[in-house]
Amino acid sequence: MSLNMCVLCHPWLRGKTLHPSVDTCKTVGHLAFMIARSKRTEIVERGLDLVHRGSFASSGVAAITAAAGAPKGSFYNHFESKTAFGIAIVDQYFDNVRSTLGSILSENTDQPIFGIRRYFSLLRELGARDRYARGCLIGNLGAESSSAEDAIRLHLNRRLAEWTSILATAVAAAQRAGEARRDVPAAVLAAILLDAWQGALLRAKVERKPAGLDAFLDVLLPALLGQASA
Amino acid sequence: MSLNMCVLCHPWLRGKTLHPSVDTCKTVGHLAFMIARSKRTEIVERGLDLVHRGSFASSGVAAITAAAGAPKGSFYNHFESKTAFGIAIVDQYFDNVRSTLGSILSENTDQPIFGIRRYFSLLRELGARDRYARGCLIGNLGAESSSAEDAIRLHLNRRLAEWTSILATAVAAAQRAGEARRDVPAAVLAAILLDAWQGALLRAKVERKPAGLDAFLDVLLPALLGQASA
Repeated sequence: MSLNMCVLCHPWLRGKTLHPSVDTCKTVGHLAFMIARSKRTEIVERGLDLVHRGSFASSGVAAITAAAGAPKGSFYNHFESKTAFGIAIVDQYFDNVRSTLGSILSENTDQPIFGIRRYFSLLRELGARDRYARGCLIGNLGAESSSAEDAIRLHLNRRLAEWTSILATAVAAAQRAGEARRDVPAAVLAAILLDAWQGALLRAKVERKPAGLDAFLDVLLPALLGQASA
Repeated sequence: MSLNMCVLCHPWLRGKTLHPSVDTCKTVGHLAFMIARSKRTEIVERGLDLVHRGSFASSGVAAITAAAGAPKGSFYNHFESKTAFGIAIVDQYFDNVRSTLGSILSENTDQPIFGIRRYFSLLRELGARDRYARGCLIGNLGAESSSAEDAIRLHLNRRLAEWTSILATAVAAAQRAGEARRDVPAAVLAAILLDAWQGALLRAKVERKPAGLDAFLDVLLPALLGQASA
């Protein structure tokens, strides 16, 4: 752990346990930094939730800071602009995407297709908790991206490419294992899977039903990766 | 044509030719109604464009009326609420969806798969005009739907069902003609096509490139409808 970093600020603790009480904390003497860090984290987490339930455009700075219990004026102590906040929530969200996808795929290296299917099944279960009302933050911001700052769109682009790349590694493994068609590059198949998932999630959000997600799992996934044209 | 309806207000003229000059119009004496109708149409058309380029949440009543050259206060003469306006722009947009899809499919009844492919190819070409920046209005509002009024979400739901139903008729024809797999109901295949298209369009919007749309046309469409599992 870096000497410049409080235990509470360490990346793997972010978003897990917030500091219970500053008074009882035995720190190495950088309380001010730690408090600022914690407040920024809280604005990111509460703000992410607000934007995810609604939209970026409809989530004003006042509402974002209020959700985090911070004064409105403090927003710009932590973020250069609302765009910088938008980029921060995309990264916070994508940290979860990356770790969830990575751990499921690494648990299923012997059956890559099973891992891919398990990943999307898990997302379906997570979506069911709020009747698919929120959809994917990255998809939602993508849909809003013409009105948002272009910097957010470019950042979504980078994150989508990273997401596709991780999934493509599993598709390539499935191709090598003879579980998936080989006549189309793994990166193209992975991108189509993510596109189709985003669309299915969008329908689930409109319908508040999982029919599109089930059709993705039961029909699209095997049809796309199947060896018919291999 | 209904006797109660001015030629300029007739449905098939809406959105095509606006009245050039009220002074020179030979009407049957219902000018006030006609002017109101025309102004409402203009608010719907200009407002639709504004929302399509941005988002519903970020398009305020003042901006919508300003785009139509109408005073802000006149908005509620035409719409009960912003939600009612949202429903009106969905209908205006869907009128185009329905007529475009319907005419392409009816021109290709002998080759239903060709008609389906031609429809999505046309959408790709239309999207290229603004480098895919706007995406689909129905998809965008779907992504926003948790923040919008629930009435808009329910209306999108109805319109998506209608869209799916028209496409399903063509898929069923393709199944009968032996051009598409028959082990999955046409309605399910049509819904997956629209979902996957929405997702591909979303990626095109983020990337400002047609890669996802091309992958849909070249890989997904044949893989999904192919007869591999028929």
